[in-house]
Amino acid sequence: MSLASSAGEGRTVASIDPILSLTRPDMERVNDLILRMAGSNVELIPEIAEHLISSGGKRLRPMLTLASALAFGYRGDGHVKLAASVEFLHTATLLHDDVVDESDLRRGRRTARMIWGNQASVLVGDYLLGQAFRTMVEVGSMQALAILSNASAVIAEGEVWQLSAAKRLTTTDADYTAVIKAKTAALFAAAAEVGPVVAGAGPEAERAMHEYGLHLGLAFQLVDDVLDYGGSSGSLGKNVGDDFREGKVTLPVILAHAAGDEAERAFWRGAIEEGRNDDEALGTARELLARRGALAATKERARDHGRRAREAVMSIPASPAREALLAVVEFSVDRIT
Amino acid sequence: MSLASSAGEGRTVASIDPILSLTRPDMERVNDLILRMAGSNVELIPEIAEHLISSGGKRLRPMLTLASALAFGYRGDGHVKLAASVEFLHTATLLHDDVVDESDLRRGRRTARMIWGNQASVLVGDYLLGQAFRTMVEVGSMQALAILSNASAVIAEGEVWQLSAAKRLTTTDADYTAVIKAKTAALFAAAAEVGPVVAGAGPEAERAMHEYGLHLGLAFQLVDDVLDYGGSSGSLGKNVGDDFREGKVTLPVILAHAAGDEAERAFWRGAIEEGRNDDEALGTARELLARRGALAATKERARDHGRRAREAVMSIPASPAREALLAVVEFSVDRIT
Repeated sequence: MSLASSAGEGRTVASIDPILSLTRPDMERVNDLILRMAGSNVELIPEIAEHLISSGGKRLRPMLTLASALAFGYRGDGHVKLAASVEFLHTATLLHDDVVDESDLRRGRRTARMIWGNQASVLVGDYLLGQAFRTMVEVGSMQALAILSNASAVIAEGEVWQLSAAKRLTTTDADYTAVIKAKTAALFAAAAEVGPVVAGAGPEAERAMHEYGLHLGLAFQLVDDVLDYGGSSGSLGKNVGDDFREGKVTLPVILAHAAGDEAERAFWRGAIEEGRNDDEALGTARELLARRGALAATKERARDHGRRAREAVMSIPASPAREALLAVVEFSVDRIT
Repeated sequence: MSLASSAGEGRTVASIDPILSLTRPDMERVNDLILRMAGSNVELIPEIAEHLISSGGKRLRPMLTLASALAFGYRGDGHVKLAASVEFLHTATLLHDDVVDESDLRRGRRTARMIWGNQASVLVGDYLLGQAFRTMVEVGSMQALAILSNASAVIAEGEVWQLSAAKRLTTTDADYTAVIKAKTAALFAAAAEVGPVVAGAGPEAERAMHEYGLHLGLAFQLVDDVLDYGGSSGSLGKNVGDDFREGKVTLPVILAHAAGDEAERAFWRGAIEEGRNDDEALGTARELLARRGALAATKERARDHGRRAREAVMSIPASPAREALLAVVEFSVDRIT
């Protein structure tokens, strides 16, 4: 029996509370290590790092690494170092992304580049990458290094692809899936896979956790894409329309454009490729997305990846860590109401 | 007997020809590997990489890695992979540097950022970094990974420091030495040190090659600083005045400012901190550098580092590779006439 159908029966909790509780003691060590890794005699580095560290992100990725190691009974401190490295890879990506996207705000706060400039953001991102690799080396697992260095190249490749494809409505569904697999899901997959690696749990466990992370990451990104247009219920949260205003071609847009008539396609071209993306245009975009069922279809795609993530993690031995990892899937998919 | 005194007697050749000959077969493999590492289905990546690869750099750093491995009788392909990784770390740094310095030209050609934009330069730099670490992992030496990941963090830290200190005439001689040690010499040191590491030559050999690379890198950077003002003989080469126009506080400027009278200090403040750096100002700068012996003193400092590099490499067993490494020192220092 798949857990998907049981979610409504209260068997799983659509919440990150279980993983928060499970990883709390180790996350304190991760946070201490992150502060040490961000240390430097060059004042600008801890200043910018502190800005990022205090930004209130959920730190889901390092929690995945911790829970994935705990799921295989790991005792040691390698998972703490790998978790901190994973968070640093992610933070470095955010710093560089904000420069590339010319973003002014992230999670409601001014971005580092708005406060300290693009130059500092590029270089401090490079420093965090270097520190991430340094810390991974300390763990001494060549396999974990292979997984994470691979992820770091794949993420950058995905970002370059997205840059090349930016504002192009010729981007296909398959292209888009490949991009988010690279730029989002690859790090989730690596974060989850290094857990069994450091625990020495063997290739089957590694494969299962890689699959889990990959599909969780895909679900996570697709849900973000839906939320950016206010969710499939049409409720308007914060930051709605960011992707639209940046001309980002996400799956909802690809689906609505593909299913649209000539007038609708002309609208999307104007909005995405020519920058006609004011609030009125955003309203029209949301109407067209609803008319073509594009948000519902994207949400269904996210649910499907959620199912695959659950199936993968169900193949590992039952444990509180497994329950926590399952609940993360529910939480990630159920953010859309 | 130090080779320093024998250079004029024809015992060493102030040329990179010996290292070019020594490493030619392996450099072909490095260049092939670099092309493979720069491959990607995302077209922009090989396009930009090709631009950088064909830019006619000397590729001194990967040659150091190869020669340092050959000096200890290494047979295998680990040194080729490490050499290619070293070059990628360097290339990624150049891509990001050009964004940070807003440079239009490098070696007389338009920079990648001028052709493909800052965004692509940042992201392709990240990709090259990821590929460098991936390739290092393939070699399977945790020690080489520790040395190179450490260098990558130190380089970025040096760059951030330089950014914080930019256009500040309060930068001291010691500050400046620390910056160039981090941003230039650390990679030379790492490139040379991983040779004996992959050859399994032991800690003494590693220390000697680290020292060699570190002092060679310091000499190299100081010579560059002198050449940027036309060399101590006052001859005017290409790109003279680049540092001056960018307001870079290099050792010659630090020394001339420190030794200058009130009027001279006012001139340097205007030039470096307030951007009064036209051709006439450059002429004045060169006069003041000569008056205060700042280029000669910087050149002497470079010579001193050259001596220390030679001393370090003389502690390893005699071989054609050692001769080639010695000749690189002569070449690097004797670029100033």
